[in-house]
Amino acid sequence: MFNFDYIGGIIVNIKDNLLKICCANACFTIDFHCIQCDFEKYIDSIKDLVAYSFEEMDALENGAIANPDEQRMVGHYWLRDTSVAPTEWITWQIDSSLLQITDFTEKIHTGEILSSSGTKFRNLIVAGIGGSQLGFQFIADAMKNMEYKMTPYTIDNNDPDGIELILRKINDQLSETLVIFISKSGSTIEIRNMILELQVAFSTKKIPFEKHFIAVTMQGSPMEKVAREENWLNVFPTWDWVGGRVSVFSSVGLLPLALLGISINDLLFGAREMDKITRNKTVINNPAMLLSVAWKYFKEERKITTMVTLPYKDRLSFFSRYLQQLVMESLGKNKTRQGEKTCTGLTVYGNKGSTDQHAYVQQLREGICDFFTLFLLVKKDRDNIAPIVNHSTITTGDYLWAFCLGTQKALFEKNRESILLTMDKISPTVIGALIALFERAVGFYAYMLNVNAYNQPGVEAGKICAEDIISLQEKINIFLSQKKYIELTVEEIAQSIGSDDLRLVSYLVEHYRANH
Amino acid sequence: MFNFDYIGGIIVNIKDNLLKICCANACFTIDFHCIQCDFEKYIDSIKDLVAYSFEEMDALENGAIANPDEQRMVGHYWLRDTSVAPTEWITWQIDSSLLQITDFTEKIHTGEILSSSGTKFRNLIVAGIGGSQLGFQFIADAMKNMEYKMTPYTIDNNDPDGIELILRKINDQLSETLVIFISKSGSTIEIRNMILELQVAFSTKKIPFEKHFIAVTMQGSPMEKVAREENWLNVFPTWDWVGGRVSVFSSVGLLPLALLGISINDLLFGAREMDKITRNKTVINNPAMLLSVAWKYFKEERKITTMVTLPYKDRLSFFSRYLQQLVMESLGKNKTRQGEKTCTGLTVYGNKGSTDQHAYVQQLREGICDFFTLFLLVKKDRDNIAPIVNHSTITTGDYLWAFCLGTQKALFEKNRESILLTMDKISPTVIGALIALFERAVGFYAYMLNVNAYNQPGVEAGKICAEDIISLQEKINIFLSQKKYIELTVEEIAQSIGSDDLRLVSYLVEHYRANH
Repeated sequence: MFNFDYIGGIIVNIKDNLLKICCANACFTIDFHCIQCDFEKYIDSIKDLVAYSFEEMDALENGAIANPDEQRMVGHYWLRDTSVAPTEWITWQIDSSLLQITDFTEKIHTGEILSSSGTKFRNLIVAGIGGSQLGFQFIADAMKNMEYKMTPYTIDNNDPDGIELILRKINDQLSETLVIFISKSGSTIEIRNMILELQVAFSTKKIPFEKHFIAVTMQGSPMEKVAREENWLNVFPTWDWVGGRVSVFSSVGLLPLALLGISINDLLFGAREMDKITRNKTVINNPAMLLSVAWKYFKEERKITTMVTLPYKDRLSFFSRYLQQLVMESLGKNKTRQGEKTCTGLTVYGNKGSTDQHAYVQQLREGICDFFTLFLLVKKDRDNIAPIVNHSTITTGDYLWAFCLGTQKALFEKNRESILLTMDKISPTVIGALIALFERAVGFYAYMLNVNAYNQPGVEAGKICAEDIISLQEKINIFLSQKKYIELTVEEIAQSIGSDDLRLVSYLVEHYRANH
Repeated sequence: MFNFDYIGGIIVNIKDNLLKICCANACFTIDFHCIQCDFEKYIDSIKDLVAYSFEEMDALENGAIANPDEQRMVGHYWLRDTSVAPTEWITWQIDSSLLQITDFTEKIHTGEILSSSGTKFRNLIVAGIGGSQLGFQFIADAMKNMEYKMTPYTIDNNDPDGIELILRKINDQLSETLVIFISKSGSTIEIRNMILELQVAFSTKKIPFEKHFIAVTMQGSPMEKVAREENWLNVFPTWDWVGGRVSVFSSVGLLPLALLGISINDLLFGAREMDKITRNKTVINNPAMLLSVAWKYFKEERKITTMVTLPYKDRLSFFSRYLQQLVMESLGKNKTRQGEKTCTGLTVYGNKGSTDQHAYVQQLREGICDFFTLFLLVKKDRDNIAPIVNHSTITTGDYLWAFCLGTQKALFEKNRESILLTMDKISPTVIGALIALFERAVGFYAYMLNVNAYNQPGVEAGKICAEDIISLQEKINIFLSQKKYIELTVEEIAQSIGSDDLRLVSYLVEHYRANH
């Protein structure tokens, strides 16, 4: 089977634990050689579960309420192929948002829409957090060998110091800067704070912010309302049937990527083609189902629920963080789809090879064995001609491959198992396909774990606790601003504001004092 | 106890599980409130182990062969206080290297040493991998709110594509660029490849590379030899008694940091002061020992060996990666100090808060509970005046604190335990102290685990496997370059070069074909 067919098509020999697929004119291999599992047997042993996952995924794609906790459909697969969307209304919404993106982007690039100072927009700030930011960050970083049409900056945190640093970098070019604020619900506090911080920054420089601000949000959301009232430059839609962590192919990801000049058609094409391949009901020909089966094997047979992710390519180092969010937020749940108690998850961490070999591979090989590894390799080494780095024919790229394959071997010698994924090169098509592959693998695996992959109730809990703390901080701020010159103990302050949580009050008092 | 003394000194009440220390004019607190452990009792139950760790650490600091596998002393604590070095010769070596750094840096900054084009050096490339790079990256990133004296670039991987991207960014300023290559042994393949790649880049632009290259390496190493023969601009020392992952206070970290304009005296002062505090034999007054005790508790009592690291500050996001390397390479071992079989480790991963709340906190709160969390908070929010982001007194910084404290609370409600570390602000002194704190905590904990924290035999194994693969790639490269126009199967190629590893040969053939 290793006599590879270079023309394409699917060739698979599950005995050798390798699947090769040709997707969107690019070649991918998924290699389970370094897993001690007879996959033919294992697949057979869970065939009912596999069939169930396929069925549920079909139902999801056909428009079922696949996220029952939020009473929502789950439609990210429709974004790249509107012909499979369940209603004409959805098809129309997606198609018209793509037109809106293309039209707006062209006007920005040609200068038909100019900044408030009358010049072309040259900088782009993408302000979002979590899922609505990571897809953009991953793809933009992967394509950074091209000449972007605008200089990108990201604000991805509610850290005032971090926001100041970005603004300082942009410095006197703020008047040529476009800002996209992304919040599906339009009520994310972090995004609200980013908007207010940037309004102050623009106003301080006497730049009319509304001519620079764009909202990406659901229709009727609080953010849309503000954007309309304040007459922002534009508003782009997203929908309740697109979750944050799978939103990269909606305006959330496509608008900023298109503004950089990255081909969103190629991204969508790659994802669409991978969707076709991963709808295949023959497990051994379906890379997404094979990944899901492998994760199931690790959980059940090896009691391992941690996947170290090691792309051997600087431009893919963000993939680990992208995947961390997609996987952990989708799979880390405490309720089954029927509402019974469970406890699931798949931890993902990693940065890039060969760098990380000098960070934590020591522990991977010799320390606690609580993980498996996902290696990623790209065949094409570089754009320019490679110098030879030894006495003969060897290049730096040859070494990169040898470090990856060598590390995989050194780990397997010590019974540390791994998956190896290769791809031809990095391009929008390939990245689109890669994202679609993992989106569906996570979807399948959630059905195997019997959890809802599309809700995130645990995130809410932190927000509620934070709001209580904000109320307390507010009381402290007001109280202390009136007692500037009086020495008070924390006990006295707590008593005055009616709190008995001395620990919390002392933290908030210290925080106040450090900043006033 | 929460009636904090703002003047300083150590105040501790272990019943409340909080230690407050004043170190180098900065205040730190370490808070174990969200751990369900009676620390007084627990410390008492392991008091022999604690005493043993203190003794062994004393011996290490006094010059014992604390890394017996490599027959080496372990001397990173001497780097910040030469008065405690075991010999005058070592004291002299450290002192003179500091003088060399200060002198050279001044000459670069004043222009007494100019680039080969006769202009001032304005860019700095730091080329290293793993421990010799992460300390610099962490500190430079933490201090990026200042105006650096040179623009920093890092090459931290053997990825030719990544190297090309850095060179493209520098573009026509290569003739004003200084490059520091860091390799303690002077024989790291990745660094050799970086040198060769950059020699080609400089030569292509007809720039004499030797007037731009600097080596940081041990005396007598292969890299020193090359640097001397080729007449590089300078060579700075490091020593066999400084491991890569604790080398940041040797020339490895101090030289590039000084070149950026970061105060290395302040860094050393912070570390030195924290060393004094963490030599205290009273456990409840010693933050490094307390951290080590907490890790021990998690391992023994909760069977947890994963620490999620969440600094709520963009400028500390690199801390998670720095700590990952320090902790995992030091503690992930398969042999006790007596050579018996064991299996140890402490997994570290994380990026930053509140961003990561929207990535994986869902799994942390509701999914598998195989971790504890280390939260980091900085009291000082920002350099500029904060706008108010609600109707009353609340700032973005207040929200950042509330998100952190709220997330800690939401996790603890579900029995997810955590440590909370606060510091006043980010400065070289504070960062120096922070690094020293964790260096010693890791050192103590390695004694508790009874492993050598200062070797890394598992890293070697991957290198050996990689060399075998390079030999095979070489045969394939030569063979295929002679058969350009002949169709061959992988079996035929394997047979011709005398290999029976069809899987490996097919990968290397594909890699060759993608790049020729």
